[in-house]
Amino acid sequence: MSIYKKTDNISYAIGAFVTFELINYKKEYVKEILISKSTKLELKNKIINLCKKNDIKYSYNDKTINKITSKKNVYIIGIFYKYNQNLSKENHIILDNPSNFGNLGTIFRSCIAFDFNNVALIGNSADYFNPQVIRASMGAIFHLNISQFKDINEYKKNYKNKLFSFMLNTDTKLNSIIKFKTPFSLIFGNEATGLDDQYKYISTPIKIESSSRVDSLNITSAVSIALYESYIKNKKEAVEKK
Amino acid sequence: MSIYKKTDNISYAIGAFVTFELINYKKEYVKEILISKSTKLELKNKIINLCKKNDIKYSYNDKTINKITSKKNVYIIGIFYKYNQNLSKENHIILDNPSNFGNLGTIFRSCIAFDFNNVALIGNSADYFNPQVIRASMGAIFHLNISQFKDINEYKKNYKNKLFSFMLNTDTKLNSIIKFKTPFSLIFGNEATGLDDQYKYISTPIKIESSSRVDSLNITSAVSIALYESYIKNKKEAVEKK
Repeated sequence: MSIYKKTDNISYAIGAFVTFELINYKKEYVKEILISKSTKLELKNKIINLCKKNDIKYSYNDKTINKITSKKNVYIIGIFYKYNQNLSKENHIILDNPSNFGNLGTIFRSCIAFDFNNVALIGNSADYFNPQVIRASMGAIFHLNISQFKDINEYKKNYKNKLFSFMLNTDTKLNSIIKFKTPFSLIFGNEATGLDDQYKYISTPIKIESSSRVDSLNITSAVSIALYESYIKNKKEAVEKK
Repeated sequence: MSIYKKTDNISYAIGAFVTFELINYKKEYVKEILISKSTKLELKNKIINLCKKNDIKYSYNDKTINKITSKKNVYIIGIFYKYNQNLSKENHIILDNPSNFGNLGTIFRSCIAFDFNNVALIGNSADYFNPQVIRASMGAIFHLNISQFKDINEYKKNYKNKLFSFMLNTDTKLNSIIKFKTPFSLIFGNEATGLDDQYKYISTPIKIESSSRVDSLNITSAVSIALYESYIKNKKEAVEKK
């Protein structure tokens, strides 16, 4: 990832799988596709056909591929223009100051697995267009609307979702909530510092019930459990309504 | 982590938090504790008192600390002898060929959060005593019994737990299982390759219900959701029995 810069207006989908996701879900932002000369014929035909169908520029360029990534066995890279998005009026995930690329990508992957299409990043978030995030997301990032906010108040001015904050110091258990009334937002704090006290007053604090033998869960575990639980509950409700 | 070697008989708990976990849960395997001269007084007193109480050797040794880790702000390192453990006759997590240090540590952390005390590693597992695993586990590794097996058959010879395999290609949903009859084992495949077909025949395949928009979940997300679900179900059962 040597040549990527946070301040650039472009980023990279590294590898065939994430590049297909990029083209299929965000083709309007694709700048060009780089293909390695040693790509197997079947994969080469597949990517070239997709590029032609979508009128996307492509070239064979192993030199640039090797500049973009030090990983071996990378045959395809998608270069795209970074974009801005508004969140849709559905359920949201809100991450306060997330700091780790891998965690961010893994959370994006879980979002799509459980039908959350919108992520709000609050404060000083890790750069979500870093290629490490894209790779950890397995391309799920290209399915999502992602938007950044200076602080939670700026978010609240724009969206009226019911807010639930995941905190350790509360008695309300995720499991005890019968259903989440749509639209709602689930809020998670930074890996090391959690959420500060203001969230107690502007949202319903809830916790994931667990043994007392660990202080807290890893953030990706916590988010995945919360997304799963609300997904299952909303599905149940949908079935009951029929 | 420059001087750690998989083939050594010692490993390192790097940082104060994991070193306290090491001493509190596996003190019989501690070789010695290294303390930085720049450790704050309160922390210094705390670790020295704990060492004295447990008759553990300690020394001020910044030179060795800097050899063991390139991380800054590491004030305490616990050096310990690697150990072997048998699994207890409770519920188990079984990981088939896990390949990533961070994932392994994060899974250990979730195990302890949801009262799973036993982990079986099948086949060619990543080295679970690597300091990166210990750090990602936040010391949870020292609460666990961990045992390695050549293959699943060797595990089955030793433990008679009811087996559930997490696979994508099944109709049985995690959520549809009313309770897990103790003792049971939850089996998860490698990050890239999943579980091979033999598991279909020796266990009950189950899946985590999700949208069709991602192929699969990250392994740490999948394990955490499964542990949470079975923990909550077992708790409910315990309450109902009262």
